[in-house]
Amino acid sequence: MARREAPAAGPGSRALIVDVIRSAVAISRVELADVTGLTQPSISNIVRDLIAEGIIHETGSIGSIRGKPRKLISINPASRFGIGFHLGPDIMTCIAIDLTGGVVGREVVPRIAGTGALAEGLADRFDAFTTGLALPKERIEGLAIVAPTPFPGRPGGPAGTDGVRADIAERIGLPVIAENDAAAAALGEFWSRRVSREQSFGCVYLSAGIGAGFVFNGALFRGASFDAGELGHVSIDYAGRECPCGNRGCVERYASMTAVVEAARADPDLSERLPLDATATAGAYDMVARAAVNGDPAAFALLDRAAAHLSVAVTSVVNLLDLGRLVLTGPGMALAGSIYARRLRAHLERTAHARQRHGIVVELSAQPRDAAGIGAAALVVQASVAPGHTPAA
Amino acid sequence: MARREAPAAGPGSRALIVDVIRSAVAISRVELADVTGLTQPSISNIVRDLIAEGIIHETGSIGSIRGKPRKLISINPASRFGIGFHLGPDIMTCIAIDLTGGVVGREVVPRIAGTGALAEGLADRFDAFTTGLALPKERIEGLAIVAPTPFPGRPGGPAGTDGVRADIAERIGLPVIAENDAAAAALGEFWSRRVSREQSFGCVYLSAGIGAGFVFNGALFRGASFDAGELGHVSIDYAGRECPCGNRGCVERYASMTAVVEAARADPDLSERLPLDATATAGAYDMVARAAVNGDPAAFALLDRAAAHLSVAVTSVVNLLDLGRLVLTGPGMALAGSIYARRLRAHLERTAHARQRHGIVVELSAQPRDAAGIGAAALVVQASVAPGHTPAA
Repeated sequence: MARREAPAAGPGSRALIVDVIRSAVAISRVELADVTGLTQPSISNIVRDLIAEGIIHETGSIGSIRGKPRKLISINPASRFGIGFHLGPDIMTCIAIDLTGGVVGREVVPRIAGTGALAEGLADRFDAFTTGLALPKERIEGLAIVAPTPFPGRPGGPAGTDGVRADIAERIGLPVIAENDAAAAALGEFWSRRVSREQSFGCVYLSAGIGAGFVFNGALFRGASFDAGELGHVSIDYAGRECPCGNRGCVERYASMTAVVEAARADPDLSERLPLDATATAGAYDMVARAAVNGDPAAFALLDRAAAHLSVAVTSVVNLLDLGRLVLTGPGMALAGSIYARRLRAHLERTAHARQRHGIVVELSAQPRDAAGIGAAALVVQASVAPGHTPAA
Repeated sequence: MARREAPAAGPGSRALIVDVIRSAVAISRVELADVTGLTQPSISNIVRDLIAEGIIHETGSIGSIRGKPRKLISINPASRFGIGFHLGPDIMTCIAIDLTGGVVGREVVPRIAGTGALAEGLADRFDAFTTGLALPKERIEGLAIVAPTPFPGRPGGPAGTDGVRADIAERIGLPVIAENDAAAAALGEFWSRRVSREQSFGCVYLSAGIGAGFVFNGALFRGASFDAGELGHVSIDYAGRECPCGNRGCVERYASMTAVVEAARADPDLSERLPLDATATAGAYDMVARAAVNGDPAAFALLDRAAAHLSVAVTSVVNLLDLGRLVLTGPGMALAGSIYARRLRAHLERTAHARQRHGIVVELSAQPRDAAGIGAAALVVQASVAPGHTPAA
């Protein structure tokens, strides 16, 4: 979907320019105008401001066929840092990224139990993590906390709970953003992959539940109440398994990490060989996935069946949105990703509605366990680079 | 989803301004700036051009608390006309609209059989229809032809068939657009309802097959190859009925007009009472729908079951995209719309993921049989008002 008109020189243009410079690594002002469709004067103004703020810098020049050499500009990676906390199914992952999306810090810590001391606990973690990294404090732009749907303070989250987010913000003295894990992971993939804004894509996020995130023209698609992406509650069987959500046949009941572990525990053969009952969901899932990858037929059959179920829901999504590109991410894809990818590719090749017009690229995330945390940190950096602009709109 | 930044004064701004004036009926320049976020000088320039081109005119003034009265501007309805041809399952509907989206001409004619004489036949129909309406020829801006997926010349349509579209364009001496019926219907609903650009919505289009159209922030969502909206190929049963598309359980096989008529013909009781075998699909469907609305229990049960199946797929879509508003349209909704709406509302109230945060409005189209034709004509008018801008991007 090509952009067809010049965007205004508003806060969105700053975000656009920074995105383009970031994905190009180094680029001239003339090329920036070509790519963004903004006017030369707009580009010059914004580039001047960004240089003054230290966000970008000039890094050399290249010869030009039209005469004088063009100066190249690049992101100044260490000028801004963002921190992301991902509250995963069993652990918490802390990520720090620089302005190019490069991970400059990563730490896995236990989750904080209960909500009573949540704000205090997360603020303490933030201090410990950033102090340990020895990043210049004044360049840390804030914290984003991502979790499955109901995290306190997420836009559209449970009423009356924004206090937790605000409490953390007060304790650390920096802005705090709350976001859905699957949506953040999609943004994380957008940043880590240097995808261009024209390439829309969908992320399948496999964790305790199943989520999705959609990046259309460089922006997260959010829906009426910031709840878009509930792939787990796409029904694949109208008369199927009951789901706590009230619906039947939700794919989450067949293909999530939780569903796989339930099935594995119910399999006498598997549960005899693997200590599944003694292990929490995330660990037990990894055991099954590791066994499957290593050739255990029962474990493989179980994951392959989950992958077949997930493929049905994802194909429906591809048909509905005519997606050309999918990224499989989330902790559930870390070990078993290739099993899911193989099934999904085969199913799409056989059944996707647009298959005669274009292929559907199915990619595995390079950092499936960290994508949500990276995306969280990216949210912070993005908000800091273009304060008036909320790309997640 | 509120717009968060000022759009540029490009061709898109013309389209935006015309949309806003159209939905406001009459508006002042100051209000236009407030609503669009464009600067006063941009508004003044564009409004001046639009007045010079006769697209809008000043229609009076209102007092202002700040002093001098503000002039009101309105669309000049008869300054431009668009023609839309909808190739329905059995008939062809010709629609002419003015610049406010008002229908100024409507005619139902037989479909043209075969593709051999298609271009000639459609060009003849265009001449007969527009001549019959006695619209000023120089104000007719073009023709849009909408049909289910594979219409020749639709963007992303079958390769090597654009000749038909080009042939018609040459014969009538005007631009010809080809488009998918469900996508056009969504645009038709956007125009007829004067929905504001901030209200995103999804259209469920029930015809021989099932389609959907999504309008996000005033623009049709198209996907990677103009194929978005294949709601009919959302699977509601991974082990269900085989579909010619290659997949299983596609909701189209359970809830389309075609599926309903197949089920009705297989019902000995119903097919004894209604002359279904002697009637083509669209007519037979209407018979069943009319019987259901008039209290025939077998006909009602059949449509109610179809509606329950469709509700499963639509709820998946609502969960995936967090839609707050749905419009049910297409010929299949003309008589049986309330049966589908009742089922869908009940299913969403019980199972939609965001139901605790917001209700999901389910509306019936005011012109379910004509929405695709109206949307086709709207595509023409939209393209004429802002030539460089393709809102359907």
